[in-house]
Amino acid sequence: MNNAFATRPALADAMGERALVSGVFAFESALAQAQALEGVIPREAAAVIANAAAGISVAPEAVAADAARAGALTIPLVKLLIADVRRRDASAAGFVHFGATSQDAMDTALVLQLDRAMELIDADLARLADAAARLADRHRATIMQGRTLLQPATPIAFGQKAAQWLLAACEDRTRVRDAARAALNIQFGGASGNLGSLGDKGPAVARRLASLLPLRFGARDTDAPLAPWHTRRGNLLNLAAALAIATASAAKIARDVAHMAQWEVGELAEPPEAGRGVSSAMPHKQNPVRCMATLAAGARAPGLLATLIAGAVQEHERALGGWQAEWPTLPELVKLAGGAAAYMADTLDGLVVNEARMRANFDSLRGLPMAEIAALALAPSLGRDAAHALVTDACKRVVANDTTLAAEIGADAVARARLSDGDIAKALDPAGALGATATFIDSALAMWRAQNAAFKTET
Amino acid sequence: MNNAFATRPALADAMGERALVSGVFAFESALAQAQALEGVIPREAAAVIANAAAGISVAPEAVAADAARAGALTIPLVKLLIADVRRRDASAAGFVHFGATSQDAMDTALVLQLDRAMELIDADLARLADAAARLADRHRATIMQGRTLLQPATPIAFGQKAAQWLLAACEDRTRVRDAARAALNIQFGGASGNLGSLGDKGPAVARRLASLLPLRFGARDTDAPLAPWHTRRGNLLNLAAALAIATASAAKIARDVAHMAQWEVGELAEPPEAGRGVSSAMPHKQNPVRCMATLAAGARAPGLLATLIAGAVQEHERALGGWQAEWPTLPELVKLAGGAAAYMADTLDGLVVNEARMRANFDSLRGLPMAEIAALALAPSLGRDAAHALVTDACKRVVANDTTLAAEIGADAVARARLSDGDIAKALDPAGALGATATFIDSALAMWRAQNAAFKTET
Amino acid sequence: MNNAFATRPALADAMGERALVSGVFAFESALAQAQALEGVIPREAAAVIANAAAGISVAPEAVAADAARAGALTIPLVKLLIADVRRRDASAAGFVHFGATSQDAMDTALVLQLDRAMELIDADLARLADAAARLADRHRATIMQGRTLLQPATPIAFGQKAAQWLLAACEDRTRVRDAARAALNIQFGGASGNLGSLGDKGPAVARRLASLLPLRFGARDTDAPLAPWHTRRGNLLNLAAALAIATASAAKIARDVAHMAQWEVGELAEPPEAGRGVSSAMPHKQNPVRCMATLAAGARAPGLLATLIAGAVQEHERALGGWQAEWPTLPELVKLAGGAAAYMADTLDGLVVNEARMRANFDSLRGLPMAEIAALALAPSLGRDAAHALVTDACKRVVANDTTLAAEIGADAVARARLSDGDIAKALDPAGALGATATFIDSALAMWRAQNAAFKTET
Amino acid sequence: MNNAFATRPALADAMGERALVSGVFAFESALAQAQALEGVIPREAAAVIANAAAGISVAPEAVAADAARAGALTIPLVKLLIADVRRRDASAAGFVHFGATSQDAMDTALVLQLDRAMELIDADLARLADAAARLADRHRATIMQGRTLLQPATPIAFGQKAAQWLLAACEDRTRVRDAARAALNIQFGGASGNLGSLGDKGPAVARRLASLLPLRFGARDTDAPLAPWHTRRGNLLNLAAALAIATASAAKIARDVAHMAQWEVGELAEPPEAGRGVSSAMPHKQNPVRCMATLAAGARAPGLLATLIAGAVQEHERALGGWQAEWPTLPELVKLAGGAAAYMADTLDGLVVNEARMRANFDSLRGLPMAEIAALALAPSLGRDAAHALVTDACKRVVANDTTLAAEIGADAVARARLSDGDIAKALDPAGALGATATFIDSALAMWRAQNAAFKTET
Repeated sequence: MNNAFATRPALADAMGERALVSGVFAFESALAQAQALEGVIPREAAAVIANAAAGISVAPEAVAADAARAGALTIPLVKLLIADVRRRDASAAGFVHFGATSQDAMDTALVLQLDRAMELIDADLARLADAAARLADRHRATIMQGRTLLQPATPIAFGQKAAQWLLAACEDRTRVRDAARAALNIQFGGASGNLGSLGDKGPAVARRLASLLPLRFGARDTDAPLAPWHTRRGNLLNLAAALAIATASAAKIARDVAHMAQWEVGELAEPPEAGRGVSSAMPHKQNPVRCMATLAAGARAPGLLATLIAGAVQEHERALGGWQAEWPTLPELVKLAGGAAAYMADTLDGLVVNEARMRANFDSLRGLPMAEIAALALAPSLGRDAAHALVTDACKRVVANDTTLAAEIGADAVARARLSDGDIAKALDPAGALGATATFIDSALAMWRAQNAAFKTET
Repeated sequence: MNNAFATRPALADAMGERALVSGVFAFESALAQAQALEGVIPREAAAVIANAAAGISVAPEAVAADAARAGALTIPLVKLLIADVRRRDASAAGFVHFGATSQDAMDTALVLQLDRAMELIDADLARLADAAARLADRHRATIMQGRTLLQPATPIAFGQKAAQWLLAACEDRTRVRDAARAALNIQFGGASGNLGSLGDKGPAVARRLASLLPLRFGARDTDAPLAPWHTRRGNLLNLAAALAIATASAAKIARDVAHMAQWEVGELAEPPEAGRGVSSAMPHKQNPVRCMATLAAGARAPGLLATLIAGAVQEHERALGGWQAEWPTLPELVKLAGGAAAYMADTLDGLVVNEARMRANFDSLRGLPMAEIAALALAPSLGRDAAHALVTDACKRVVANDTTLAAEIGADAVARARLSDGDIAKALDPAGALGATATFIDSALAMWRAQNAAFKTET
Repeated sequence: MNNAFATRPALADAMGERALVSGVFAFESALAQAQALEGVIPREAAAVIANAAAGISVAPEAVAADAARAGALTIPLVKLLIADVRRRDASAAGFVHFGATSQDAMDTALVLQLDRAMELIDADLARLADAAARLADRHRATIMQGRTLLQPATPIAFGQKAAQWLLAACEDRTRVRDAARAALNIQFGGASGNLGSLGDKGPAVARRLASLLPLRFGARDTDAPLAPWHTRRGNLLNLAAALAIATASAAKIARDVAHMAQWEVGELAEPPEAGRGVSSAMPHKQNPVRCMATLAAGARAPGLLATLIAGAVQEHERALGGWQAEWPTLPELVKLAGGAAAYMADTLDGLVVNEARMRANFDSLRGLPMAEIAALALAPSLGRDAAHALVTDACKRVVANDTTLAAEIGADAVARARLSDGDIAKALDPAGALGATATFIDSALAMWRAQNAAFKTET
Repeated sequence: MNNAFATRPALADAMGERALVSGVFAFESALAQAQALEGVIPREAAAVIANAAAGISVAPEAVAADAARAGALTIPLVKLLIADVRRRDASAAGFVHFGATSQDAMDTALVLQLDRAMELIDADLARLADAAARLADRHRATIMQGRTLLQPATPIAFGQKAAQWLLAACEDRTRVRDAARAALNIQFGGASGNLGSLGDKGPAVARRLASLLPLRFGARDTDAPLAPWHTRRGNLLNLAAALAIATASAAKIARDVAHMAQWEVGELAEPPEAGRGVSSAMPHKQNPVRCMATLAAGARAPGLLATLIAGAVQEHERALGGWQAEWPTLPELVKLAGGAAAYMADTLDGLVVNEARMRANFDSLRGLPMAEIAALALAPSLGRDAAHALVTDACKRVVANDTTLAAEIGADAVARARLSDGDIAKALDPAGALGATATFIDSALAMWRAQNAAFKTET
């Protein structure tokens, strides 16, 4: 159930072992066809291999022990495929997996999995951005307390916070898509990475293979790099990094929401749902479990990414240990990134926003967060230095007397003489303290709209 | 198959989700019985609960979605148990999970899993130490090239290397056992960690509970700490650290063996086994797949441990995200540590040692690694400074002329005059350059014997 | 200033490069003296070397470039020492660093640094425990809201939270001391780890060397292991792990304090200090900068520990890269652990506790957290099932009507008939809901007292 | 000396604390000027501030204690600047740091440092690519043993290995530059990120500020995003990830070189240099210390990156701990990445390549790695199945008889009948087994040339 907790079932399936097994057979089938098209193996053999690969079904558990002994999943799978092909046509058996190495099949299968996973993750990042955009737009003037170092700072609009979430989601979506474009390529290099068994036919077969296994999010067929990447994992790591960063972005939202959902703060709540986050013993409890899952993902992603990068210091033409450390690690990271995006999309979609509580929390500071801006607002009437001195003194009295800044400024004789109650109220109105908020929100929304339009065209 | 690759099946089962589910029910059963014994709940109710818990069987997949929604596996499991108990005796249903919190059940189930895992890991660490001890003893005079910074240093005995592996295995075994002793305790604190629903009966129930769930490797019943450790994970982290360190020790052995098994070095080979590490396309290939799996474990353990420690900065009485990050992470680390120990135990048990190749590789350096020791050996005959100058000059000629140090010393007129061929041969004999090797090996063997004796008595 | 931020100046000095340089010379001096005592080198030479080592002073920057080129700091330092000795007595120069390797000096110097650092860290962990103990004792009945998953759970005493901090501090202190006992040993193995240049004198020299460089927190001279640990880093890693865990424990306190110091919670504040955490622009701001530094330490420790463990998979008799990765990493971790302990000791020492606010926050939940315990308290009067139904219904009305649980129970006719206002108040009094709190606190205090007594005797 | 070891001095300076202090003052100066240009503060005040900022010099050590107490370096620096400005013109003092927050200055200073660091890193990545390109081109037909899982596979050209290094260097260079383009932007948001003190002038001031602090590698002025990124660290993390990946790529080269420089392999050596990697005690030793430093960097980068990503889960408008964890971590990673690139550029530039040894090592396998390709080569003459059977049998005899594959094929009667010695030699010639090598190398060289041309135009 840990995986169910960490991610969506569809993504768990996409990155699961069954999908990996399917991908290995898809590779072997496409390889045979590509080689037939280039005259490397007989067309009849390719047809038999493709039929066998289409029909074969192997449960991962069934080959687990053999794979562990052999050192790679591909080895027992190819053996089973050869046996199946031999039953159909003995002469075709020698053409299975021809010129390829285990890692060719493993890496290509991984790439096929990642391409499918990308559809799910991209859709959830888009949903997340959409939900954040709606909040940014709706709450562009909803006053709340800005908070730095977990202490009150100056006032902000809740829409500003949502616009920052939005910008992160848009950037993450672009970054993950760009990284996938570079990373998702078939792998085909043969035993030592030079396609030595294929004579001069290697590059042509590689191109055919790529066109037979089209990738929605990967490199376009035409720009598929020719050289294998057995021990050159930079592009794959870059995709992993983009996913880890997206997980951190989602976890930042989760942390903000969970903090604002604290009982004593009470500004936000996760969307209620039957059975979600309830406690039988404590009727008042509504645990933010989507935030919890996302924060757990945020706690795990750095270690998984570090493992992948540590594993990338690979020996010679195929690594001993470093590559294999990727196998269980990368799928976990992919699942966490997608799960975190989905959980936060769900959360922002139905987020319960308590605007009154936001305002009340701001008001509980009795005007103090307005000090600097109030001094600026009063400067034209009082002079800059006098305004600053007035506000500073008034702030001290607010703390000493447990009053409000409006009351203390109003109680000051100098201020009294020059300012009406309305002037004072205006100087202390947080609505006047939002600065560039509207510009920032509008530019974030523009970025989001442009991105949505561009990506719709693209895929 | 990734798990099959990473560890032994028995350990995968011990740390698997089925065992976790069983542990939750074992906790609920023992809790009811402990509470009945202390008069907190009726004895009849406890009997019904214990019977239900003994009979219930839940596949982890069946509750995955509910667990994800509720935020903890325990919640749907306790619900199912309550429903089962209600069918047996409605009045007993209210006493299920009484005064406990989800984390009490989850953590106790984890501890039960770890206790079982410890048996397997301890046994494999013992096997690893035994195999290393045999090698250390057998090869106390087998000359080979010592290597530092991947370059030749001075000669060593292969037994010294094995003695270092042995010391690490012994230290790891003690460290893991000590860490388990401190970490393996039942968890019982209730909703906020003070057993508030149990009035003054909490500590007594906790003691009963501990005695009903005896742990082989954990704290003795009498010294079980009274306070819960919901957000105080130091002892558990310490066990995780001990396991990560043991994984690194095993990976160090794997790296040494894999390096010495390189074709051009040829000093060691993993024990051959049908289907292990073979390549169909390359008949000469014998991949060191046990080393590979162990090095992969070594690459993964640091990131997993880092995740656990990062997750330990937990909020208040129960964490949001940090605790949950432990769930999938700690079992992986446990499985890797046990798998690595087992793989290296198997490897050292049947290690193929090529003593001739060790000697040949040493000899290929033509005496140069003996320079310092030869100068010392010749000092009594020639004087310290003269001996040093003689050897230094001879070394330069060895490199320039592609000869041996014996030849060049023999060709030196001064040396010739004072030294016989036997004297020179003796000064250059690596057998005389092993220094404290025998003492080191003997003390390592003594430590190993003492440890085996002590642990046999203990458990 | 980053180091000033992360730790205390004394600890930064202890783990700094100047101390490392001093340690290397201390090693060389002690080595010469040990060898003279065992008859390996002339007593006169040893005296000259010791004098030179005592007088030499090298700024780390002055040898930085040479050290980088040579690959180890020891190499230029030993060269400088030899030159100095030669100026004093040419015949003694050949006895400098005799039979030793660079790593012997580097690791021994590190151990000397760690021994000094341990004094500082142990003292701060003791101060932290003392401060937590005072809080636990003083606040054993101070009611506050227990919080799980960042949501209100059942009531606790603030003293319980402090007792958990105390237990962690005590466990950390023991764990760090135990780890130091095993890890802190001189290193002496020579070029390939067998003291080959020393003939049969190696172990005796090693023992002398250890006795000339006594360690307060390390192994007692008599149990110093004989074998070098050049590539067997388990005990050192274990110390690093204990320090990382102690950092996480301190960061947990920091997170609790920072959360409780949020404006809307207002239960705790860091001790005020001139210039600490102030903001010129925002007069109301009091940033919890000790918590900030400690949380930053908590964020950094896992990655540093992971680096150390990853680096421990070391090749042969001396690693290429893995050992060297330790050099900048371990001192950072040591400084963070000590800094975090010191910051939290300071914080708890003068912690501003607002008991009224704790109670007010609890009361703001209008009795709901008492639901389960109230039902238990009313069971003797009403019957278990009726009491449970009554409280459950009352809770629903509390939420619907925005009233209190006391009011709603009081408004229930059945309850009214059987219970006095006093009965209801008693059932809802959180003082009656603290369960095992006193026992837990007392046992934590007992552990702390016993530890203080034991460690006082010991050192 | 640890930093001298890890990186080039120029890069250590660029990322050092002095440069950070300078950057803070550069920010304050540019801010005042930008605000004067937009009419936010008087021009005279801006001139005074700019003069003061240009003249002030503060040693980092001098403000370390104050910075630690205040919680950020900027705070004492701004205080010193204000004091300096006040001495020049009291009326200007109130306009220092106007509307800005500490993080604005810190992050902008960091960005200025990174921009300078990028020049150095980009240049070294370019040097690394150039050196690899030369090796790839020169050794396109230099036969050596391909190695997978640290065991011999099929033959390759050394140029293929160098082409893989080249592709990694080119990809890393592009990736780092692209990441810098997105990450390097000035930071300007004010206390809570909305530039609240600037009314509607915020965005215009931000644009001016960006144009006054031009970045060579950062975003072009026109596309500078308007919104601050105080707690949105994705682009910065992405740059960190690109640097960590580049470090791993360099470490892969280092591992390959160090493995091939093992005595028993002897195919490569680091360029010799006086004082580099020598051992006084062992005249034959030439330690690969550039590889050592690079492998140490590769061991450290993952943990540093993980720390940064873990720290990115930041609270609200400014984080407590997560941001501060960046301060010492990111500069280390930058220095390691640049150091690794420089060390490997130096290494490949003067790499000692022993072609004869490469061939001898391949030949020591007595033809076995040619088995599959030989069977393919003989298929036209013998028939596919017969050729395969012949070679398989011959391989077995090679192992059993310790002969060569050429001899065993020649000894086979069937082969004898159909094949000349020349036919057999041709089938076993590794030059015929290089497959797509030339194509791969040519495409790598084309990519490198195109990149060099594009980047030359660009900057």
